[in-house]
Amino acid sequence: MRISQLFTKTSKSAPADEVAKNAQLLIRAGYVYKVMAGVYAYTPLGLRVLENIKQVVREEMNVVNGQELIMTNLQPKETWQTTGRWDDDVVDVWFKTQLKDETEIGLAWSHEEAIMEMMQQFVKSYKDLPTSVYQFQTKLRNELRAKSGIMRGREFVMKDMYSLHASADDLDTYYNSVIEAYKRVYARLGLGDDTYVTFASGGAFTKFSHEFQTICDAGEDILYVHREKNIAVNEEVLEDAIAELGIDRNELEKVKSAEVGNIFNFGSEKSEQMNITVTSKKGQQQPIYLASYGIGITRVMGVIVEKFADEKGIVWPESVAPAKVYLVRIGGEASIAKADELYADLKTAGIEVLYDDRDERPGAKFADAELMGIPYRVTVSDRLLESDSYEYTVRSSGETQILTREQLHDIIN
Amino acid sequence: MRISQLFTKTSKSAPADEVAKNAQLLIRAGYVYKVMAGVYAYTPLGLRVLENIKQVVREEMNVVNGQELIMTNLQPKETWQTTGRWDDDVVDVWFKTQLKDETEIGLAWSHEEAIMEMMQQFVKSYKDLPTSVYQFQTKLRNELRAKSGIMRGREFVMKDMYSLHASADDLDTYYNSVIEAYKRVYARLGLGDDTYVTFASGGAFTKFSHEFQTICDAGEDILYVHREKNIAVNEEVLEDAIAELGIDRNELEKVKSAEVGNIFNFGSEKSEQMNITVTSKKGQQQPIYLASYGIGITRVMGVIVEKFADEKGIVWPESVAPAKVYLVRIGGEASIAKADELYADLKTAGIEVLYDDRDERPGAKFADAELMGIPYRVTVSDRLLESDSYEYTVRSSGETQILTREQLHDIIN
Repeated sequence: MRISQLFTKTSKSAPADEVAKNAQLLIRAGYVYKVMAGVYAYTPLGLRVLENIKQVVREEMNVVNGQELIMTNLQPKETWQTTGRWDDDVVDVWFKTQLKDETEIGLAWSHEEAIMEMMQQFVKSYKDLPTSVYQFQTKLRNELRAKSGIMRGREFVMKDMYSLHASADDLDTYYNSVIEAYKRVYARLGLGDDTYVTFASGGAFTKFSHEFQTICDAGEDILYVHREKNIAVNEEVLEDAIAELGIDRNELEKVKSAEVGNIFNFGSEKSEQMNITVTSKKGQQQPIYLASYGIGITRVMGVIVEKFADEKGIVWPESVAPAKVYLVRIGGEASIAKADELYADLKTAGIEVLYDDRDERPGAKFADAELMGIPYRVTVSDRLLESDSYEYTVRSSGETQILTREQLHDIIN
Repeated sequence: MRISQLFTKTSKSAPADEVAKNAQLLIRAGYVYKVMAGVYAYTPLGLRVLENIKQVVREEMNVVNGQELIMTNLQPKETWQTTGRWDDDVVDVWFKTQLKDETEIGLAWSHEEAIMEMMQQFVKSYKDLPTSVYQFQTKLRNELRAKSGIMRGREFVMKDMYSLHASADDLDTYYNSVIEAYKRVYARLGLGDDTYVTFASGGAFTKFSHEFQTICDAGEDILYVHREKNIAVNEEVLEDAIAELGIDRNELEKVKSAEVGNIFNFGSEKSEQMNITVTSKKGQQQPIYLASYGIGITRVMGVIVEKFADEKGIVWPESVAPAKVYLVRIGGEASIAKADELYADLKTAGIEVLYDDRDERPGAKFADAELMGIPYRVTVSDRLLESDSYEYTVRSSGETQILTREQLHDIIN
């Protein structure tokens, strides 16, 4: 994509009321636009990042036989009354509105009840289980405060998966396979080394709930980590964990962390509350076992920004970057022709390129390349033209090389 | 995809309160699930159809240099007050809700004002124009009645594009290029022959608004069509049209039709109301010219169902079908092996297949294939095995052929 064609522009400052680093950088670099506190639009570049993250998650959910669908924002009150979760004292993030006839309806903050209600129509027998469905849904949550940028929005994109099983054992097996799928997701997103399945409240690696936490200074949580043993403990259960796991408190490193995923085992609770059953092998009615698995897609995007950004701007891992190459053109006609040619070549090779074809100072182009965090910058200039070479710079390390065309192609492909 | 793995099942009946044919068929075939009146979830099969329609639209919007982004559902009151459209007497489909501090907010039913407000940040000079952005957004509209299935939902998916220009002339040129893009969209969706740009209220092919109407018995509009001259006139402006176009009333055919797209030329009205300007060539502040272009994605899906369905069920055009082939397996081990092999072969060739691998009566499988509307049915059976052949049936015509493997591959690819 030619930068001259993008309607977004970088800017030196973010809105004064924006205190989160992730949103400040994403706004300055032209990835998001702030509509109101906790509510952000995603520009063409931001949407590409979101779609890249979604595609990684989608592929891994498909590996565990998840079937993608899309539920609804509008929710009938009755769906949530059966479990008590319509009550604002039980769930304090509901946005509610009403139809013309004053029927009260809710805006989905989650979908467990909605999924169970729908499944009632299709799942009649133990033979119809297990089944697993997921969606990428825009969730609306009426958060009291929204000061963490896209890490905690009032409107955000979530991947939520729900698995239904005929037995607790079958659920456990599947639940563990999703833990592995989540590990693959975070590894592919560049967060693998610093993301832990945590020892959270509810007992030793409880079967009732797990969090995935990424070490990150902007995180809202405190984690005690034993990197060698690959153990991470939430602060609130530190004493229990020390006792239970027999670990030495002094070997634990205290770090700030951000939740990047959470999974819940509801057992047969929802099924029983909602009175939704299937026929068992013995021909009797039995409850359905349910687990849910969330990844905040926009939240993960925010964590990636917070974690890897440096003083110059964003640093995207290659797997999520909106383009692999930022092509800078400096100089006269010959350089323009050479850059145009390289742009066409790279596109033909299927490589996404942001081509800075603007008439701007070199310094401004380099600064934008850095702010926008594109993994590899390639520069074509009159000076480089003399030796028929290209300047190649890695965003994450700053390492720069002067390369021949052949070397450039080898290194980029 | 193996049908045994799909959680959805076909059914003989739709919910009693569902009066629209499109929703009845889509529910029975397992494409949508009704959450409440005018609010439908899309199952894995339904989501595929939606994504196919979106992809056709996306490709054509990209041809006219549209840049895809995603705006927000939650909208501040202030954005819409500047143009008077926050008022429920002016816009009677708002869903509204409030933040914890009782700040009133709206749920987006459209995005003109939101786009203009965002663009204010990026578009400063005539040099930044023209620019065109679009999104696939879930819109919420508080419709008084919702009895047309997915053709008029309270929650639905819309492609809305917005183009901004420095002059009325530039807008007109672009506007006409979008009309051509829309024609390509409907042609690719199989609706081309029966879709017209209509002579609507506001004068002869007014520059202020155009509708795209598809001849369809389930439509809510009445159209007078001159097929030879490729002219269609909305009922309410029939007299004007006859006078203006000099056509003979008797040559016009009266048909029912459904709106499948509409485009509006706002001129500089929004810009002036919202006080958003750019610097002109002469260095003065000048207004921005705005047009918007909508296609209801879910609505189009409903129109396609209504238009092509027959007494056996849905008939998808190939461009939107969730799979190209419905593979029916009948018989014993040898047939199973042969069907498995064909399934693998077709998948390898990149052809989407719904493989009916269930232990069901042949009649039930054939009925499901027809209800679900997959373009081509291929049957493998013990009897066909004897002659090493396949039965191939076209859903739209019912035409059946017995083919060799080579013939089958030729006809499907």
